[in-house]
Amino acid sequence: MHDPVQHVSRRIWRDSGFTQGSRAVPEETAVALTYNGGSYAVMMATPRDLEDFAVGFSLSEGIVSSAAEIQSLEVVMLDNGIELRMWLSGEIAQRLSARRRNIAGPTGCGLCGIDSITQALRPAAIVATQRQFSPQQIMAAMQAVPALQALNVETRAVHAAAFWSPSRGIAALREDVGRHNALDKLAGAMARQSIAAADGMVVLTSRVSVEMVQKTAAIGAPVIVSVSAPTALAIRMAETAGITLAAIARADGFEVFTHHDRIAPGEAADVA
Amino acid sequence: MHDPVQHVSRRIWRDSGFTQGSRAVPEETAVALTYNGGSYAVMMATPRDLEDFAVGFSLSEGIVSSAAEIQSLEVVMLDNGIELRMWLSGEIAQRLSARRRNIAGPTGCGLCGIDSITQALRPAAIVATQRQFSPQQIMAAMQAVPALQALNVETRAVHAAAFWSPSRGIAALREDVGRHNALDKLAGAMARQSIAAADGMVVLTSRVSVEMVQKTAAIGAPVIVSVSAPTALAIRMAETAGITLAAIARADGFEVFTHHDRIAPGEAADVA
Repeated sequence: MHDPVQHVSRRIWRDSGFTQGSRAVPEETAVALTYNGGSYAVMMATPRDLEDFAVGFSLSEGIVSSAAEIQSLEVVMLDNGIELRMWLSGEIAQRLSARRRNIAGPTGCGLCGIDSITQALRPAAIVATQRQFSPQQIMAAMQAVPALQALNVETRAVHAAAFWSPSRGIAALREDVGRHNALDKLAGAMARQSIAAADGMVVLTSRVSVEMVQKTAAIGAPVIVSVSAPTALAIRMAETAGITLAAIARADGFEVFTHHDRIAPGEAADVA
Repeated sequence: MHDPVQHVSRRIWRDSGFTQGSRAVPEETAVALTYNGGSYAVMMATPRDLEDFAVGFSLSEGIVSSAAEIQSLEVVMLDNGIELRMWLSGEIAQRLSARRRNIAGPTGCGLCGIDSITQALRPAAIVATQRQFSPQQIMAAMQAVPALQALNVETRAVHAAAFWSPSRGIAALREDVGRHNALDKLAGAMARQSIAAADGMVVLTSRVSVEMVQKTAAIGAPVIVSVSAPTALAIRMAETAGITLAAIARADGFEVFTHHDRIAPGEAADVA
């Protein structure tokens, strides 16, 4: 249960009948994120790079504003899942506690529909860098990803989120069954390794929904490149957040939905 | 914002340079589910079939045990989203309220890591029907889906969950950017139309994670067929819940991971 890839036996049906064989499938584990002894959320996640996940989730959710605010982090293996056990300083724990009390009401979170939607759609951070990239760099970033998707090479069923910069190429890549988790893991890895986000792009293998844009804005990366398509709401959020959204990036090119001025043919630095 | 498909302008990059054009992308809307005036959750969802979503979500979450327990349901368009405004009878609202109070603690939900994981992985309902299907019926169910994915035909970016039975073929099909939402919408549609779940299969276009199995068990369907792969945890949950899990269903065949005795070559009824 704690190994990210499992080998299972299954029957295969083809026109000629049934045969038996084994297949590698991704594991999915119930991961509880706890702060100062209380559960905040249980996420279904691929059990790898869980320290990165703990830090990235805490940043994405706005529970901490820097990795240093997490005083301790322990990955605790349980019988039926994994606990990411974090301790925050008294002041930060109190802030979290106050926020939770604030939204704890009689039926549900206590907010009305309008308030809770406003909270979910709170404006993303604004990414203001003027850094430009060439179309060739976007293609290079996309093409660098598949060979590094170790879990996906085995299972063909997990998403990746990676960070690419002209000077370093792929500086970090994380995988998960869930695309949000993969991006949270990347955020945590970048925070823990002090990778500067303004110099590069977040590369995704998944569809771009609004939360992927919100998380990228929190990371501070100016460009998202994805293999798959964006939603209309993600496009509006990227427009507002100052993020260049390039999507449907395939072997023959890509499409740019927002802030295309950051993509300048022939003007940017060489491909790393 | 309330139309499920939006047409956006974007630039296309190919080797020859940039061109401009329009593309259909799926909308994603913040949808607040409220009960008796309090928000329970905000989900990002495709704004179509939202009454089905409200009923299916309420059933999947165990807030109600039948659609009839929802006394009224109103779809309220807001400036920044949509509220699914539901009213429950006093007794059911009190039960929900007590459950929420029970899990509202100082930091987070108040449960420890072990308790919150146990709650997330609570055993699914057991599907006990002995109903058998032929491999040809599974192939027929899969093949009937794509032409009915109206939003996906336009956008190539939304998932579908459908219910197929030998007597009716595709009895219901629902679409959403999120695969969980698509299945909740299907659950709601089946409950509202009194479609008997024990006679057929749930057909998915997405990867099968554990929550997709839990939702199918709540619906009461004995078979899941999916285009994509399952997780190891989803396989274990399907085994326990008595659900036949067929996945990686493509033009040339499929793979069966659990309870293959329900798939009997040549023995089942004719394909509808």
